[in-house]
Amino acid sequence: MSDNQTAISELQVLLGDRLSTAEAIRHQHGENESYFENTPPEAVAFPKDTREVSEIMKICHKHGCPVVPWGVGTSLEGHALAVRGGVTINLGSMDKLLHVAPEDLYAVVQPGITRETLNTELRATGLFFPVDPGANATIGGMTATSASGTTTVRYGKMKDNVMALEVVMADGRIIRTGSKAKKSSAGYDLTRLFIGSEGTLGIITELTLKLHGQPESVSAAVCEFEDTASAVNSVIMAVQMGLPVARMEFIDPLSIRAINAYSKMTMRECPHLFMEFHGTETSVAEEVQRMKDITEEFGGGGFQWATKAEDRNKLWHARHNTYFALKAQSPGAQGLSTDVCVPISKLAQAIEDTIADVEAHGWQAPIVGHVGDGNYHVLFLFDRQNAEEFALAKELTHRMNMRALELGGTVTGEHGIGMGKMKYLDDEHGDAVHVMADIKRAFDPTGIMNPGKIVSAN
Amino acid sequence: MSDNQTAISELQVLLGDRLSTAEAIRHQHGENESYFENTPPEAVAFPKDTREVSEIMKICHKHGCPVVPWGVGTSLEGHALAVRGGVTINLGSMDKLLHVAPEDLYAVVQPGITRETLNTELRATGLFFPVDPGANATIGGMTATSASGTTTVRYGKMKDNVMALEVVMADGRIIRTGSKAKKSSAGYDLTRLFIGSEGTLGIITELTLKLHGQPESVSAAVCEFEDTASAVNSVIMAVQMGLPVARMEFIDPLSIRAINAYSKMTMRECPHLFMEFHGTETSVAEEVQRMKDITEEFGGGGFQWATKAEDRNKLWHARHNTYFALKAQSPGAQGLSTDVCVPISKLAQAIEDTIADVEAHGWQAPIVGHVGDGNYHVLFLFDRQNAEEFALAKELTHRMNMRALELGGTVTGEHGIGMGKMKYLDDEHGDAVHVMADIKRAFDPTGIMNPGKIVSAN
Repeated sequence: MSDNQTAISELQVLLGDRLSTAEAIRHQHGENESYFENTPPEAVAFPKDTREVSEIMKICHKHGCPVVPWGVGTSLEGHALAVRGGVTINLGSMDKLLHVAPEDLYAVVQPGITRETLNTELRATGLFFPVDPGANATIGGMTATSASGTTTVRYGKMKDNVMALEVVMADGRIIRTGSKAKKSSAGYDLTRLFIGSEGTLGIITELTLKLHGQPESVSAAVCEFEDTASAVNSVIMAVQMGLPVARMEFIDPLSIRAINAYSKMTMRECPHLFMEFHGTETSVAEEVQRMKDITEEFGGGGFQWATKAEDRNKLWHARHNTYFALKAQSPGAQGLSTDVCVPISKLAQAIEDTIADVEAHGWQAPIVGHVGDGNYHVLFLFDRQNAEEFALAKELTHRMNMRALELGGTVTGEHGIGMGKMKYLDDEHGDAVHVMADIKRAFDPTGIMNPGKIVSAN
Repeated sequence: MSDNQTAISELQVLLGDRLSTAEAIRHQHGENESYFENTPPEAVAFPKDTREVSEIMKICHKHGCPVVPWGVGTSLEGHALAVRGGVTINLGSMDKLLHVAPEDLYAVVQPGITRETLNTELRATGLFFPVDPGANATIGGMTATSASGTTTVRYGKMKDNVMALEVVMADGRIIRTGSKAKKSSAGYDLTRLFIGSEGTLGIITELTLKLHGQPESVSAAVCEFEDTASAVNSVIMAVQMGLPVARMEFIDPLSIRAINAYSKMTMRECPHLFMEFHGTETSVAEEVQRMKDITEEFGGGGFQWATKAEDRNKLWHARHNTYFALKAQSPGAQGLSTDVCVPISKLAQAIEDTIADVEAHGWQAPIVGHVGDGNYHVLFLFDRQNAEEFALAKELTHRMNMRALELGGTVTGEHGIGMGKMKYLDDEHGDAVHVMADIKRAFDPTGIMNPGKIVSAN
């Protein structure tokens, strides 16, 4: 019996029928949202609390059995694939909103709660959790991948909105990081270290999240542009002026076409900005007017704004479904989503060079972006069986990544490294990657925590 | 010759007269802003660039010679004292503003530049660096201690405003963390790990800082209250309403008396809030009105506001000099500044309990606070030769720290751990301190980086 199988036998005793080796369950946890092959673990554990996660880790640590934490599997770089076998820990049963402190603007949650469920449960308090990556990911997964999204330009990313963590370490120790105070200078910032560590340093079992008051007034707006540069330059000017717009999303004509078809809308097939403004009635009206002035300066037209919740929800629902809208246009196609982020002044150039590069290779690939942060995504849709198409998608992605680095940016604004971008981590961080590996070895000396992701400890 | 002396001899060859063993220079670098005894290093190095810092570290690493990085020595917990001898590295010669990217809202600086110099040099760009701990500290020191201050309630702390670092590691390797993009999910967040590491993990030799546009309109305001709770509860309500006030400072009557004397002002000796509002003319006027309404609800009076830069500067100059104003009232006295931070809903209770505890021991100690963050400071002034007074100051501090932890807060909102709060790090973080020690050992296996601070690696 292999060491992994010995560990799994012991886990079976611990968890009973909350440990599954069924083919269908394993296959489901080998699935992913990107182009990686299905990679099933040898078993899937469904712990019900932190204590059980700790016991699982003690067993796996003893036998050197790899573990992979799992939320709902929305990650895009193969983060949750069991590439060295072992056990996937599905945290979906640990999905409670444990405590809300409305007067202190925080909530304590378990990792398996999804952001939509959390916000539904928070509604009556007048508070919300702002980070919005589009997908209805779990809060644990969003933390592990250092997610951000449409509202980050105003409310920040996970790193700005997670105050404290409970983490189970590789050997089963349970630690707590951070505090419920708004700030602290007490020792090394372990909270920020675990955020974005993609399950390679420990398993997040509880989170304290910063909440925000629902704004008095919310307005959404849509604006059309003749070309990409005009849309992007409008955003750059708004950012440089310090306009606190809550959302500023760029949508290219290909995406607009797909959204129109999928969400039954009738937008003109040209570059668009989708925006949202939060504040008091006075401040929102002032911001909308300023943004309208800016867009007009860049030839933007058809500026429409919506204050009714129903209209706003329709707009953002359409935006969030862009990925599915695009996939619906190419049934059976495989998706490869890129995720570069550059300094804002380089954004128009980066996007235009990307479009030119893609078109020069005879491809058409849609682009959307959280452009207020300098972050954009090209989605390559291709036939996974067509080696040439697959190679070209990877080659174009490679060139996007290298272009972002040349411009002082990053190869991943929000998706993370996973398996897909490990080779680029060296390009981006050079010798600092050795220091990351030092941390990995210190936290996980036997290398069982989601091995084969982010950094090699050898 | 001891190992340290061997290292110092080699450093002399490297640095020539930029390595000093003069008594006066050593004494100056043994000084500190708190109650710790003068603790001079064996030598002081004045490197002129990163390369030299790296060479210094290689020599010190080879001989196991302790090194202590030094900014201008404003830290309050003995952070920069050479408790195990060795070499203090004064980074004051590396004080350049290297690059400003106004279109991308960042600046690249060397660690020795002070925040006032930086903002003076930035003035023409219309941008500023907001973090303001009061003291004219160096940016490197502010980063190493994870500083914050009066504007943090609106603009965040150092952790929110440092984008990237260049760091020299214990063995002399030079690494770069972060990027110039507004966000990144590329690997472990080394930037945030070095922020607040107090020179125990590496030496920061270059920083990329987030800049903010100078607001169109700025207004300061002062308001009087009959009691502490009313002032603090006004702030709590403003925070809970999400009012984006730029500064909200609580000043107690003892501090007001000292400020009146020191800065020639005539404020009534009662609890005060000093506030500042940043935005457009419309939004500032709206915020000031809302804040005025809130303060009136809590019986606040004498609400005065100033839009002229001269009047505002006078107010904040007076606030920043509170420490010196208080010390001027007790010539020769030693200061011990506390630094707890609690969840905002617990703030009024924490401050009132603190005052009651201090008064029950027959002491009068002034209190000021960045109360929008839940952070406040009691300053104990005492005769360093009077063992009883010193013991009582430490005992009252101990009780404040434990009270903050009971309320879910932290023993240090912004000053850091240094030597003074190492024992409280265990109380605050429990087993997580072992994980911090793992990091310390991984980064600095021979224990030469500012030993005796934050965490013991043994």
